[in-house]
Amino acid sequence: ENTFDLTSHPHTRLNILTGEWVLVSPHRSKRPWQGKVEAPAQVQRPSYVEDCYLCPTNTRADGSKNEAYTGPIAFTNDFSALLSNTPSGDVDEDGLLVAQSQRGLCRVICFSPRHDLTLPEMEVPAIRQVVDLWAKEYEALKAVDYIKYIQIFENKGDIMGCSNPHPHGQIWASENVPMELEKETRQQKLYFDKHGKSLLSAYLDKEVKEQVRIIAENAHFVALVPFWAVWPYEAMIISRRHVQSVTQFNEEEKTGLADILKQLTIRYDNLFETSFPYSAGMHQAPVNDGSEHPEWHWHMHFYPPLLRSATVKKFMVGYEMLANPQRDITPEFAAERLRTLSAVHYKSRQL
Amino acid sequence: ENTFDLTSHPHTRLNILTGEWVLVSPHRSKRPWQGKVEAPAQVQRPSYVEDCYLCPTNTRADGSKNEAYTGPIAFTNDFSALLSNTPSGDVDEDGLLVAQSQRGLCRVICFSPRHDLTLPEMEVPAIRQVVDLWAKEYEALKAVDYIKYIQIFENKGDIMGCSNPHPHGQIWASENVPMELEKETRQQKLYFDKHGKSLLSAYLDKEVKEQVRIIAENAHFVALVPFWAVWPYEAMIISRRHVQSVTQFNEEEKTGLADILKQLTIRYDNLFETSFPYSAGMHQAPVNDGSEHPEWHWHMHFYPPLLRSATVKKFMVGYEMLANPQRDITPEFAAERLRTLSAVHYKSRQL
Ligand SMILES: O=P(O)(O)O[C@H]1O[C@H](CO)[C@@H](O)[C@H](O)[C@H]1O
Ligand SMILES: O=P(O)(O)O[C@H]1O[C@H](CO)[C@@H](O)[C@H](O)[C@H]1O
Repeated sequence: ENTFDLTSHPHTRLNILTGEWVLVSPHRSKRPWQGKVEAPAQVQRPSYVEDCYLCPTNTRADGSKNEAYTGPIAFTNDFSALLSNTPSGDVDEDGLLVAQSQRGLCRVICFSPRHDLTLPEMEVPAIRQVVDLWAKEYEALKAVDYIKYIQIFENKGDIMGCSNPHPHGQIWASENVPMELEKETRQQKLYFDKHGKSLLSAYLDKEVKEQVRIIAENAHFVALVPFWAVWPYEAMIISRRHVQSVTQFNEEEKTGLADILKQLTIRYDNLFETSFPYSAGMHQAPVNDGSEHPEWHWHMHFYPPLLRSATVKKFMVGYEMLANPQRDITPEFAAERLRTLSAVHYKSRQL
Repeated sequence: ENTFDLTSHPHTRLNILTGEWVLVSPHRSKRPWQGKVEAPAQVQRPSYVEDCYLCPTNTRADGSKNEAYTGPIAFTNDFSALLSNTPSGDVDEDGLLVAQSQRGLCRVICFSPRHDLTLPEMEVPAIRQVVDLWAKEYEALKAVDYIKYIQIFENKGDIMGCSNPHPHGQIWASENVPMELEKETRQQKLYFDKHGKSLLSAYLDKEVKEQVRIIAENAHFVALVPFWAVWPYEAMIISRRHVQSVTQFNEEEKTGLADILKQLTIRYDNLFETSFPYSAGMHQAPVNDGSEHPEWHWHMHFYPPLLRSATVKKFMVGYEMLANPQRDITPEFAAERLRTLSAVHYKSRQL
């Protein structure tokens, strides 16, 4: 057939949040599906591990002792990449060697005292406690006047550089607005100034109408594979209400966020019947820069590396590093696979 | 000490080629060097492998048979991500769902008939043959009128997504200018229009004077760790002469390129006494777009993932994906380690 078609012909798609493009090569997924959908041996972790530096009552790298905590807790990262006492200064040699000092704070958030759990295996009320702690940490970091951006994120799984399987996430709060956020602020502001509503409200309306990229929904949030997804099973959670940060969610919305997090991560685990690795994080408005950022619309990105099975991942290398991100399976194919999976975690089905 | 200092305080550095920033956390490398510099068991590959689809006389995925080739060869990728017969078309739903068809050509270049070699283990005249083939392929692809950019690259090592250890690289030639190249074109043009010389000539002058980030030099090329390096041992090769593409190098320069490629990759292999994985590729001026691109200065990037040993890599995850690239060891530290390594490949020293 000679008519251009997104499901079969190579093309580029625009990421409206960053203004950047992804190359999609759907014909490569027309090859017979070689990846196996296999259930690898489940290593069930114990609920407490003596030499885990995140388990309750254990000793951390800096010598301090964890409390006998029962819900989620937060503390300062023992190996913070950003420090609060960095002296300020900059370098500029003819615009060729350019550098600026950076202050900041790095926090660790344990999601649960139980070493053997992950978000999809926690109950909604327990995940809700994590949401509350994120909001509390965000408030506290925002109160530090030099902080301009607060990045809440999680690296899950050792192939995502996570060195300790105890369920935890991180927060890096910085003196500058990181690049990805600069891009998203610019794009959202352009749209908001022109149309008087948020870019993601308009985008969400379209996606909810078309349905083809939706993974799951509840009253307050939608989980979908964005039209411009780079990673094979990349996803976004977007709030139906246009707010700038996690602290603006009401009680119902906070529980709704816990619910959609569980819905999405259960489907991830079910896809290859494995604890699905990813890096995920919230994107929110910059802080303490004199603007209310009415253009900003809260959302969360999930970047999972797996492509064909629990053991075969997509490599972002060569062409992707030097030229342009590239993907094979279409976002629509990925969304359909995730949407049609069971909403019950495979481990509880096996019981 | 209370004075800002690039060797000990967290800071951001500007990548002058893209206009983007990297977060550097040098204090994290002040922790005792935990990574071992170990020589893992060497698996010496045979020079011919019966079921390798790149070895001479073997059958490829598409059923065709490789010649009994004796030098480097090029052929069309059996699983090309870009195709020449894609019908043209585009999608634009209210600026929210935006896509464009893409035509292109993908080529594979075998560096050597010998399955057991890699660039650092080949002799300079043999690498020179690869340089000549790159130039020849570049000319041929440039003759295709719809091609706007020609990306020559190599993924080396299975942790860089290379599925076949037979020494080879790729070329993806596309109808659009990929994003990284758009960025580099914009930045180089800004500088050239203002100063009447290339950005990289000015940058190279500075680096050659300061010496701290230089890895190796010859009469025609310099290998260095750029001031804004993201990967721990990232490097660039920059030509001393300001040219737009590999086809403009004279005989001496082509041999010089082969020599500097060998010098750099030998040091890479010597760093952890392992076949050092990386993605590498040339950046050159866009083609067939009506401009001579006088601002463009040929260079080559090397993005190697290893951080502390042959088995411990840097993970670009969480904060890096969501917010901003981050590194621990400074570019100056990395350059010094590479510069002071032997220029003789560790395997030949062991003989
Ligand atoms: O084309 P190959 O070697 O099959 O694939 C490799 O290189 C490509 C281009 O960098 C990447 O998109 C793939 O993820 C990688 O596995
Ligand atoms: O801070 P951690 O967990 O030691 O480290 C992990 O997350 C960081 C932030 O995404 C990354 O920079 C590291 O490469 C990764 O291993």
